[in-house]
Amino acid sequence: MDDGIAVDFGEDGLVPAVAQDAETGEVLMLAYVSPEALERTHETGVAHYYSRSRDELWQKGKTSGHTQDVEEVRVDCDADTLLYLVDQEGGACHTGHRSCFYRTINGVSASEANGGSSTATVDVENVGERVFDPEAVYDD
Amino acid sequence: MDDGIAVDFGEDGLVPAVAQDAETGEVLMLAYVSPEALERTHETGVAHYYSRSRDELWQKGKTSGHTQDVEEVRVDCDADTLLYLVDQEGGACHTGHRSCFYRTINGVSASEANGGSSTATVDVENVGERVFDPEAVYDD
Repeated sequence: MDDGIAVDFGEDGLVPAVAQDAETGEVLMLAYVSPEALERTHETGVAHYYSRSRDELWQKGKTSGHTQDVEEVRVDCDADTLLYLVDQEGGACHTGHRSCFYRTINGVSASEANGGSSTATVDVENVGERVFDPEAVYDD
Repeated sequence: MDDGIAVDFGEDGLVPAVAQDAETGEVLMLAYVSPEALERTHETGVAHYYSRSRDELWQKGKTSGHTQDVEEVRVDCDADTLLYLVDQEGGACHTGHRSCFYRTINGVSASEANGGSSTATVDVENVGERVFDPEAVYDD
């Protein structure tokens, strides 16, 4: 049974999308998706996102060759988050790791700053697998 | 080797956190985390988030009993997204599904609205497993 629903892109016109390795289940990265990025992803079968820092539509891996073939896209209960199930070429992370989540948190210290806003400093340990040398990939 | 880094909570003081079943690898939900929620999660070993709609710290499953024991917390390369590896009691989704990502997208139609902002309507199909009756859990 198919049902039409509206994706809630919120005030900034973007939704977060989690990319997960369709075969191993490894969570690879989180990035943001615009309506156009979602449409392009669906049309081409290759993962597209929207870069908030560069303010533009972005085909993952266009520079590095580390593309993501999208096997399936899911939407969550509130229709404000997506899940891309992908076949990842090479590594998802610009640091050369297979997954962007290559660091585990061993300790947390939150500190309240002036004005009520607060931050957290965390102690991390690198537990991820490095699959390519970023200098060799991006250095041109 | 441990390293101290600052988590980037951004302008709204929150980071998105992906909750993944530590055993099966299933992506269960995405929610938002404040510095206090991260600290509380680390201290108690039970997943805490920050509810944007209720504007308050939130222990997942406090009402429903569907808590998440947190085995590990990871942080991504940009230190602006977290990954909770959890042991999920019952279902993560308030709809009664095991995962909030219980719908797959079969079609996408993006439409440009006035003023340049655009939306997307998607055709979805329910592919998720329902593990509890939400009326029986929340109806009190």
